[in-house]
Amino acid sequence: MSRTVYVNGQYVPEEDAKISVFDRGFLFADGVYEVTSVLGGKLIDFAAHATRLERSLGELQMESPVAKDELLEIHRELVRANDITDGLIYLQITRGAADRDFAFPENATPTIVLFTQSKPGLANSPAAQTGIKVISIEDQRWGRRDIKTVQLLYPSMGKMMAKAAGADDAWMVEDGHVTEGTSNNAYIVKGNTIITRHLGNEILHGITRAAVLAFAREAQMKVEERAFTIDEALQADEAFITSASSFVMPVVEIDGTGIGNGEPGSVAQRLREIYLDESLKKAV
Amino acid sequence: MSRTVYVNGQYVPEEDAKISVFDRGFLFADGVYEVTSVLGGKLIDFAAHATRLERSLGELQMESPVAKDELLEIHRELVRANDITDGLIYLQITRGAADRDFAFPENATPTIVLFTQSKPGLANSPAAQTGIKVISIEDQRWGRRDIKTVQLLYPSMGKMMAKAAGADDAWMVEDGHVTEGTSNNAYIVKGNTIITRHLGNEILHGITRAAVLAFAREAQMKVEERAFTIDEALQADEAFITSASSFVMPVVEIDGTGIGNGEPGSVAQRLREIYLDESLKKAV
Repeated sequence: MSRTVYVNGQYVPEEDAKISVFDRGFLFADGVYEVTSVLGGKLIDFAAHATRLERSLGELQMESPVAKDELLEIHRELVRANDITDGLIYLQITRGAADRDFAFPENATPTIVLFTQSKPGLANSPAAQTGIKVISIEDQRWGRRDIKTVQLLYPSMGKMMAKAAGADDAWMVEDGHVTEGTSNNAYIVKGNTIITRHLGNEILHGITRAAVLAFAREAQMKVEERAFTIDEALQADEAFITSASSFVMPVVEIDGTGIGNGEPGSVAQRLREIYLDESLKKAV
Repeated sequence: MSRTVYVNGQYVPEEDAKISVFDRGFLFADGVYEVTSVLGGKLIDFAAHATRLERSLGELQMESPVAKDELLEIHRELVRANDITDGLIYLQITRGAADRDFAFPENATPTIVLFTQSKPGLANSPAAQTGIKVISIEDQRWGRRDIKTVQLLYPSMGKMMAKAAGADDAWMVEDGHVTEGTSNNAYIVKGNTIITRHLGNEILHGITRAAVLAFAREAQMKVEERAFTIDEALQADEAFITSASSFVMPVVEIDGTGIGNGEPGSVAQRLREIYLDESLKKAV
């Protein structure tokens, strides 16, 4: 069955979901995106994604072409049309189509695309029980990773490097310190302290990161937002990642070395439970 | 009049030139490109562009989906169909459409798009007589600029920073040294010596750069391929850029300071003449 995809105001079968070859998202990676999780047919943390979207657009001097309530309605219509119980909604906005020129066009109409991915049992991924393995790679991305742009080639290459090494993902390292995973934020746990990189231009300001850190603090866990090295991670009691689609996911191995006892850690498991419980309560 | 555009084996009117929203060029900037100049209806340095295209594809573990002679025929057909005397032919190849996943898809069919831009008098640009003004900006791009990918958002932003400052382009600076312009290689001239950054992952391996340096050496000019600073550029006798679409273009001002006597320099002008003469002789 073909999915229904949203393209510039129209709901169309996925095979008809097309954009111009002159779209600046295609020619210049001049666009931003968000991925919102759906659990039990409801949207997780939608408002935060909509807020970050506006920030990303603003950083690229783009006006938001769609109001938040309209965006919410499109998300909900796609959930209905595609009968999504658990899954993801992908949203991309680009500066639109214009004859090719490095300078921003003056009168382009932004392109808006949304599509769904059904992921039955998304919250019960087997990987959450076993944990995942990561490798470390050099962070070769551009300098503004706080803007959620579609310049995702290097993260994509990183995922392939991980697969080639028999791992699940890659943690990127810059100037000796971990920035983040290919599509997630990275954490280690030492004693009762959760350590994750501070916000800045170097990492994405994860929606799930913000929620998980807030829950951790509410649960009286200590949180240190600072850079850490792979060596420090290898000495940690636990490691984990967070993202909109993986929630909280334990990391049990880094560069072939087991972390802690080599099993998913209790802090990661507890934060995953809290995050899923609390997010479901607030899902829209 | 609508242009004829090439998309995946078809010649179509530009308003019908579309690709799937699932194209990885659109979602991940997972694609490469080339721009070949047309002068007098003939292609400048086509073979070198085709060779670099193959290298870029190889660096991304993509097979070339089109043989060089077929690619040449597509270029020529677009020149004919769009009656291009002087202008550009843009070519982009992406990994193709697949459901969204950071990992490379196993069976995607690459997307091939080519379109023309008519630029009457391309070789007689007024800017070649007056020279252009550049500003310096921090180089925030990813680490593999030797691969000609469509991750062009930062160069595009750089062009806008230049425009906002009343300049024509930006030279990017990393660790204190100039890498290149937003879509061109950067040069300074001191005495009889042409200085331009050495090849590496930090800059695009310009086709025009290679040709111009070869002509310079044939003309007994001294060439130093090494990094230089903005301070050194400000003390230079001349500055210029090269690219497939600007050929050799004098730079007369950097960050508001005139270079040399503030007029286009004789080395740049001579190299432009030689380059245009020799390239036209070999054009196909």
